[in-house]
This record gives sequence, structure tokens and C-alpha cells, in this order.
Amino acid sequence: MVRRAEVFRSKQGINLLTGHRVESLDTGRRRVAGTTLDGKNFEQGYDRLLIATGASAIIPDLPGVDLPGVLPLKSLEDGRRIKRRLKTETVKQAVIIGMGYIAMEMCESLSALGIQVAMVKPNPVFMPWLAADLADVVRDEVSARGVKIHAGHKPERIEATGAGLKLICSDLELEAEMVLVAVGVRPASELARGAGLELSVADSIAVDRQLRTSNTDIYSAGDCADAFHVVTGSRTWVPLALRANRAGWAVADNVCGQAKTLDGVAGTAAFRVFDMEVARTGLNAAEAERHGFEPAEMTIESASRAHTYGQSNPIFVSAVADRKTGRLLGMQMVGKEGAAHRINAPAVALHLGMTVAQYTQLDLAYAPPFGPTWDPTLIAANQLMKKI
Amino acid sequence: MVRRAEVFRSKQGINLLTGHRVESLDTGRRRVAGTTLDGKNFEQGYDRLLIATGASAIIPDLPGVDLPGVLPLKSLEDGRRIKRRLKTETVKQAVIIGMGYIAMEMCESLSALGIQVAMVKPNPVFMPWLAADLADVVRDEVSARGVKIHAGHKPERIEATGAGLKLICSDLELEAEMVLVAVGVRPASELARGAGLELSVADSIAVDRQLRTSNTDIYSAGDCADAFHVVTGSRTWVPLALRANRAGWAVADNVCGQAKTLDGVAGTAAFRVFDMEVARTGLNAAEAERHGFEPAEMTIESASRAHTYGQSNPIFVSAVADRKTGRLLGMQMVGKEGAAHRINAPAVALHLGMTVAQYTQLDLAYAPPFGPTWDPTLIAANQLMKKI
Repeated sequence: MVRRAEVFRSKQGINLLTGHRVESLDTGRRRVAGTTLDGKNFEQGYDRLLIATGASAIIPDLPGVDLPGVLPLKSLEDGRRIKRRLKTETVKQAVIIGMGYIAMEMCESLSALGIQVAMVKPNPVFMPWLAADLADVVRDEVSARGVKIHAGHKPERIEATGAGLKLICSDLELEAEMVLVAVGVRPASELARGAGLELSVADSIAVDRQLRTSNTDIYSAGDCADAFHVVTGSRTWVPLALRANRAGWAVADNVCGQAKTLDGVAGTAAFRVFDMEVARTGLNAAEAERHGFEPAEMTIESASRAHTYGQSNPIFVSAVADRKTGRLLGMQMVGKEGAAHRINAPAVALHLGMTVAQYTQLDLAYAPPFGPTWDPTLIAANQLMKKI
Repeated sequence: MVRRAEVFRSKQGINLLTGHRVESLDTGRRRVAGTTLDGKNFEQGYDRLLIATGASAIIPDLPGVDLPGVLPLKSLEDGRRIKRRLKTETVKQAVIIGMGYIAMEMCESLSALGIQVAMVKPNPVFMPWLAADLADVVRDEVSARGVKIHAGHKPERIEATGAGLKLICSDLELEAEMVLVAVGVRPASELARGAGLELSVADSIAVDRQLRTSNTDIYSAGDCADAFHVVTGSRTWVPLALRANRAGWAVADNVCGQAKTLDGVAGTAAFRVFDMEVARTGLNAAEAERHGFEPAEMTIESASRAHTYGQSNPIFVSAVADRKTGRLLGMQMVGKEGAAHRINAPAVALHLGMTVAQYTQLDLAYAPPFGPTWDPTLIAANQLMKKI
């Protein structure tokens, strides 16, 4: 997403000060202060302040992580740097540290360029947040595309070799001309912390449902701020685009004196890696247990289309419910088509606290090109009923 | 769907009497009676009776409708007859009477065989149940594929010509080697009517939420029976596969003495014609008005993928809400990808009586290959908020 500074200034009348790094926040005097790019100090007062500092890529504390050819991926500039390097250097092999959404998308993009990709991370469990059977399906797909997955290997250092780079783990060495670092992001909450604002999950900035921080004059929105989870009611931190965008709209209203309230997030997310769609909403069994539920879990295999239609692909659904209340707590899906869009129906159900029994009664769309008569999520709910 | 009679008899121990036409139902004596294929009379008593007679194709009262080459499409046998005719005769042109789901699917199948297809119906409005802008998109797609659409022409008779058939309307004549009749279905409720059971919308058999008819010993399920609509609370008749299948499971339990209750239908449906997906759930504006709501309607154009991703197709969403209560009443969608699966999120919302304001807060999945940051249904809901 690119927005030009002139538009803010000329069309919206906003005094946009680029090149001004805010370094401190004085909540008593209601002023921020910092340094400009040319080294001058500045101060700026406020009646209301919005902290929208986003998140920044986590760079592991790894010897050699600052070598040329070792690149994080978070900002537009990071992306440009990777593209430039792919143009100017010969990259035959790449190593990606991390196996999250971004790592998977990069792995697909690099593979499409004919680059041999290896992925590495310390945790031996591939996609631990995904039901084990579903994670296996994704892992098989990624491996089948020639990507080497090394889960359970902790990177220890990166060395420059004559030809390029070497990533060294305790029991594994990987040669590459490029090492991408995609181990996640952390909220850019240093300013808020320095000013004594309340922090939340993963050091995100705690905000109420109107995006107000623990200081009544200060709001926060975007990847730096937390959110309430509609299933648990607890604070959570989900740095994803829709929440950030929605919070941006709401906080603008609220800074201007309105009282727009946000319900919260369901933890709905989707990504694609090669031909495989992966989607989730709500809690998995482990998360459900941590939040005091008594989870029952059911994983089913269904089909992306009616069997009479042909051209069908398997689709795997895992559903989690609370044994005590019968409430649906989450669903996950993996499949070659239709997994991402299908996750939205259970997401709506979570917002309203639907039980699995209610879910089984839903009138979802059926036509042979789009799925079996019983939508895969209905089949999962029907089977889950037998466990609760 | 094909099920062999032997399986019912040998594996399930069901005394399956094929070739027995039931012609009367004596609710006082609890007996059905009729004639076998070889002309013998039979009677069969019951403690509980299930009427699952389905629906049958409507054949318009049209001179020439019984000519060879004029074919309805409802049963497996109808399908086989069409296939046989396509093999044994040279069919270069086909006329389809009707423009519903089945007519559209047939139009695509015949076009794929290189047959020039014309479609005709009396109502000048193409897909009157669909928001006008959305109907135009579908009509343009079908026309662009070379199908001739003649809406507003009432078929008057079919004549045999030397070469084939001629469908004659007041101001239009269409030549063809095959005329398909796909003007809809009606519930096969004659037996129920004859026995004095209460009938419902479109002469379907009225059943309660446990699939019981107005006679306590008699149940009905499938395309012959009605259902409650989750938005209106009123009786409706939606002869679609999921409801029929779900009612079949529930009624089996209830005939055996359980009390399985069905919530009802949302009128969710989807079909594909050529590359266009069409989907709906709930009420359109006219239906909403008829049921005493004060409908506000909003149609938006969005995209099937994020604009940064490329390869995107337009997706059109129409949303209807009640001005009095703010409640979401229905949504419709048309687009080249992702329309059918996307309809399920608003379908869930309808089951729980969600308001449009609540809908705008939903945490739906986002990733560039699957849609814009704000799902098209969220954009429609956001825009609809301005009208209510």
C-alpha cells in the first residue's frame, strides 16, 4: 500500500511531518518530542494523540544477521531490497528462517523464480497452531514442490562464504545466496511503554473497545494495538490487515469526539501456499484449553465439490467446541480450493456465540460446482456433535 | 444420486415395495392403497407414515409439448433421455423454456457441446428475484457466450417441422431440434391433499419443525414439504438438496419416536452459469416488503482479489436490511469467482437475526489471493449502513 505525503497535505489539509522521529511522549504536558532527519529537535503538543506505529519485523539476535544478503521482510522497502538483490545477484538457493504466513508466501514466490528454497525454525512442530492432520497436508504440499522443511533446527549463526552465505544450526548447515528472516513481527510499542501506558499481549498497546489507551487522551490503532477476542472475551494481539484498517476508521471517529465501538476479533486468517489454501477462525484445542474451555476436537475430510461433479479436491476441516456449553470455539480448513472463503461462515458463528448444534442447522449454499450437499463445515459440525 | 433397491432390502432390512403406486391415503384406518405395475390392488397399514414424494417438473399446458424432442428435466430418467437424443439426433439448435437455475445449467451444458441455445420465458424481467444490477451482469455473461435470451415472450405452441421443431410465441418463432422444458417444479402433494392434510406455500405439504403434518401420525420431508423461513418466521417452500437431505435425517429420527427439531431455511442458494457464480440468501427487497419489513437495498461492486494481487474479477453484492430494526434481511452476489462460497457468511448472520451494524464488525478472512481487505459483503454492509 503506497500513499503519497502530498495527498495528505494538499487534499486533506493534514500537517504531515515526515522525517520526524518521535522519541518521547510527555502525557502530563501533552507533548511529543524527538529529532528530525537533519538532527534538529522538535516538540509537538496535542489535545488527543493517536499512536499508530504498527509492528516491526523481529530480527533474531544471531551472529551474521547483518551480512549482505540476509534480509527481513516486513516493509515495502524490505520488499524492494529483496527484489533488487534477486536482480543484481545470482540466487540459486535461498534459506527462509521462519515458517509463518509470510515465510510461506515468500517460499512460494521464490520457488516460482526457480530458486531452491529451504525453510528452518527451532520448533520441531510444523505450524503448531494448526490441527496436526491439517498441518501434515500443508507440509506435504510444500515438500512436494521441492521446498526443504527443517523444523526443529535452531539457527545459531550466519557466515559469509566465498560464494554466498551459510546458515549454521547445531546439527544442520544450509548454503544459500540469500537468507530471508520471517520469524514474525512485534508491536512498535516502545513509545507507549516509555510513557507508562498499559501494555497487553506480546507487548502490544492495551486499548479499550473504543481504541483508547490507559490514558484518556491517547488512542492507539493498527498492528501496535491489542484487541478483544470475541470467543474468549480476553485481550489478544492479531496484527492483521482487516482489524488494523477497521480500527483506523473507528479511531479517527473517536479522536474527533465520537464513540465508535469495536466488537473484537475472531482470529480469522487465511493464506495460500502453492495450490493449498489454509484458513482458521477462533481457537484451536490448545488455545481453548488455555482459556478454560473443555475442548472437543473433530477433524474430517470432505470434498471441494459434489462427487457427481468431478474435478473435486479434498478439503480438511477441524472444528473445536466446548464440551460444557456446546459452543463452537473455532474451525480450521486446508484444501486446494474453497478453504479460504469457507472460513467466514464459522467466523460469523463465533461472533454470535453459536453452539455446534445451531451450526448443524445452518442453511448454507449448495450446488455441485461449489461443494457437497452438506458443506464441509456442516459435516465437521455434525461429527463434532457426537463428541460433545 | 442413485441408490439400488437391493441395498435397502438386504442391508437395511427395509421392505421396499417398488412398482407400487400409492393412490389413496385413509388417515382414519391408517392405510394407504394403490395399484402395482401389473395392475393389482394393494393396501398397506401404518402406525406412522412418511410422505416423501418429492417434486415433479411442471409441464406447461402447451400444444405440442408431447412431441418427440420436447423434453422436461427433473429426474435421472429425463437426463438420460436428453443424453440419448443428443447422441441419436443431430441437434444444432436447442430452445430452453424457462430461465431458472436448471435452465441456466442446461444452457451451459448444451453450449459446451457446440449447440446454439435460445432461452424463452413470458416474464420480461430476467431473473426477477435477483437485484436488477446483478441480473444484468448474469444476462451479459450468458449473452456474451452466444446464448439468445428472449424474456417476455409467452410460448403458445410447439410444432413439428420437417427438420425438427418450432416454438411459436405471439411475436417470435424459434426453430430447434430440441426443446427443453425447465419452468420449475411443483410439490407432489396430491396424496396429501386427497387425505385432507394441510397444504402450504405452492401447495407443498405443511409440516411443523419436527416434520409432522397436520395429522399427528403422518410426517413429510423432502421437496414435497414446506419449511419455516428463519428471517420471516413464515412458512416457505424451498425445494433444494440440503434442506431435503437434512429433513430426511431428522424425520427418520422422529418417525422412530425422537423429537429432532429443524430451525428452518434461509433461502440460501447458488448456481454457476458459464464462468459466473450467482448466490443468494434471505430476502430480496420485494420479498422483504411483502413480509412487512421496510427494506433498504444497497448494491456495490468490489473485487474477487486484492488490487495488489492482480488477476482480479469484479464481484457484485446486493444487501437488504430492515430500516425499522436495522436487521440484515438478505444478500445476493454475482461474480466470476468466490460468489458462491461468500454467501455463507451472510447466511449464518440471517440465522441469528444479526443487524447490519453487527455485520460490519465481523472478522472475516483476508489475504490478497482471496479478496480485498474488506470482504465484499462487509463493503456492502458498510454502505448499507448509510441508508438505514
